[in-house]
Amino acid sequence: MVHTIAIEPTTNKKPKPSGERLEFGTVFTDHMFMLDYDEGKGWHDPRIVPYQPIELDPAAKVFHYGQTVFEGLKAYLTEDQRTLLFRPNKNIERLNLSNHRLSIPALDEELVMQAISELVLIDRDWIPSEPGTSLYIRPFVFATEPLLGVAPSRQYKFMIILSVVGSYYQEGINPVSIYVEPNYVRAVTGGVGHAKTAGNYAAGLKAQEEAHEKGYSQVLWLDGVHRKYIEEVGSMNVFFKLGDTVVTPALNGSILNGVTRNSVLELLRHWNIPVEERALSIDEIAEAHRSGQLIEAFGTGTAAVISPIGALEWQENKMVIHGGTTGELSKRVYDTITGIQRGTMEDPFGWTVELSR
Amino acid sequence: MVHTIAIEPTTNKKPKPSGERLEFGTVFTDHMFMLDYDEGKGWHDPRIVPYQPIELDPAAKVFHYGQTVFEGLKAYLTEDQRTLLFRPNKNIERLNLSNHRLSIPALDEELVMQAISELVLIDRDWIPSEPGTSLYIRPFVFATEPLLGVAPSRQYKFMIILSVVGSYYQEGINPVSIYVEPNYVRAVTGGVGHAKTAGNYAAGLKAQEEAHEKGYSQVLWLDGVHRKYIEEVGSMNVFFKLGDTVVTPALNGSILNGVTRNSVLELLRHWNIPVEERALSIDEIAEAHRSGQLIEAFGTGTAAVISPIGALEWQENKMVIHGGTTGELSKRVYDTITGIQRGTMEDPFGWTVELSR
Repeated sequence: MVHTIAIEPTTNKKPKPSGERLEFGTVFTDHMFMLDYDEGKGWHDPRIVPYQPIELDPAAKVFHYGQTVFEGLKAYLTEDQRTLLFRPNKNIERLNLSNHRLSIPALDEELVMQAISELVLIDRDWIPSEPGTSLYIRPFVFATEPLLGVAPSRQYKFMIILSVVGSYYQEGINPVSIYVEPNYVRAVTGGVGHAKTAGNYAAGLKAQEEAHEKGYSQVLWLDGVHRKYIEEVGSMNVFFKLGDTVVTPALNGSILNGVTRNSVLELLRHWNIPVEERALSIDEIAEAHRSGQLIEAFGTGTAAVISPIGALEWQENKMVIHGGTTGELSKRVYDTITGIQRGTMEDPFGWTVELSR
Repeated sequence: MVHTIAIEPTTNKKPKPSGERLEFGTVFTDHMFMLDYDEGKGWHDPRIVPYQPIELDPAAKVFHYGQTVFEGLKAYLTEDQRTLLFRPNKNIERLNLSNHRLSIPALDEELVMQAISELVLIDRDWIPSEPGTSLYIRPFVFATEPLLGVAPSRQYKFMIILSVVGSYYQEGINPVSIYVEPNYVRAVTGGVGHAKTAGNYAAGLKAQEEAHEKGYSQVLWLDGVHRKYIEEVGSMNVFFKLGDTVVTPALNGSILNGVTRNSVLELLRHWNIPVEERALSIDEIAEAHRSGQLIEAFGTGTAAVISPIGALEWQENKMVIHGGTTGELSKRVYDTITGIQRGTMEDPFGWTVELSR
């Protein structure tokens, strides 16, 4: 079913930045998508309007009880000027999973896809074309009912905004140093760690800040129950090449089911590289490092795609991985996924979706 | 130090509701307090302005990464027309503890106290006088920087809004039925359960919703590690009278350090009733129920003060407590704390703070 999305074009187009050296998520395009929810009426009034501030009652529940979820995906411009999305259905499905976990009414997934498509096409001129650049798409839902009772909101807004994203790796992909977090916990099974909720990100800031002070880029999160099984790295999923096998933590309810994670797994299986999704302890990693079997490690996520890990610090033991340089597998996975995303490599999986009017 | 708070009085006073039958947190007063933070400049521009909507960029971090904390306390009108607060310093201290945990810059605690005082006095006519009613004070902080990078915001707003609150118990205090939650987890040590962050409340909604569907008022949360130690009930702390001793879960990093919890502990000790703050398993409660030693149970929080628990369901075993009626101790604690709050009983602890110009 094709929905009717009202469109109010901007009369005041903003200047476009050069895409090369932009801080992530700072420059937004000319338009945004909005959809309202009222109990009894459902989701209503889909519309594309000029990018502008929104007005909210100070009692709106988003400010008090954090009923807020989001997604993140990217649009790419190919060399022959086609507009591609990468597996948008995965993000849209997960958006409703997050909605469900936070007692937010489900969105019509076809409408969300149509909204993304129409919005990106209206602001198509904003998609940068330099290598490594893209248009970041941020769908998000938040509770707007002005009421302080602790109960699911009866009013919401769903919005999509677009941000021009410069190259994540301005001088090629560079390995990062990671601090294995001994005190703070990101999430636990039974909680909301598998949902893309705002609160998960706020909860992780302190550990990130302290890791920065120690000279590390990010933390590696361990599980909250045994304090030894690896969960995520910063806000990315994480993979380790141990000998000839690639291992990533299994989805256990506290880990985000990343779209890039899933794509890396499919790619590795396609290449006949042995992969395992299972519980993976930091002790096993330390032992693999001692025995020379810790070959590579990398994080996966929409922003960076692949983020190689050059060193891990755990209990004052610094484990250098692949001599602190990017490993062959990390590079191959990065080149393949970004190549498929940008249409420069074949897409045997049907991952890309071309947008056209 | 006395700060200068700019005041813009409203020119359009709203009609006041009768305080008797109001839904919690639905009616707001004529004014609100605002304070801004910008990196490099610190917290600035304290002001009281007419209650009104606020305008935010859709990329403001509160919508995406949940950097939001809050507090809740009440102002009471005594029979001789004095305005009392109950232990406001406890809330203000905890606000900064929550700020610290979420990497939000600390607030000047004297300024916060002054802001609460001036705002309540300006809207003093809104404080209802009927028994059981009060003016609910909601201080909250949220991140406003319009930037999608996952890092602490460089801009915030601190606001205080006031809401007229009707009697929580319109027909006397009534015991509630509670479902012991076997699957969902509220928080875990190392996380943010001890901080009053928005995300904690969003994370608890689903369990609450499912408990309602089963006919229960709320859930009793068990710990996320062993899945057997009692943590909180809904968004309240919880106490059990086992034989002659009152037991409440110890503050372990995942439980909120409630102001009412602390007051109940002090009151019980003042009365020479044996109290214990320790790990308390649901099995111990079930065993106490079997042996006739589970005498009373109640939740504590700012909204209800004391919420007696009439029944607990755990693994299809329904434990009726005190015949489903309010116990003597629950009633005595409720009457004493609300009496001190409203100035009808002596305050040997110096808990109340009188506001005056």
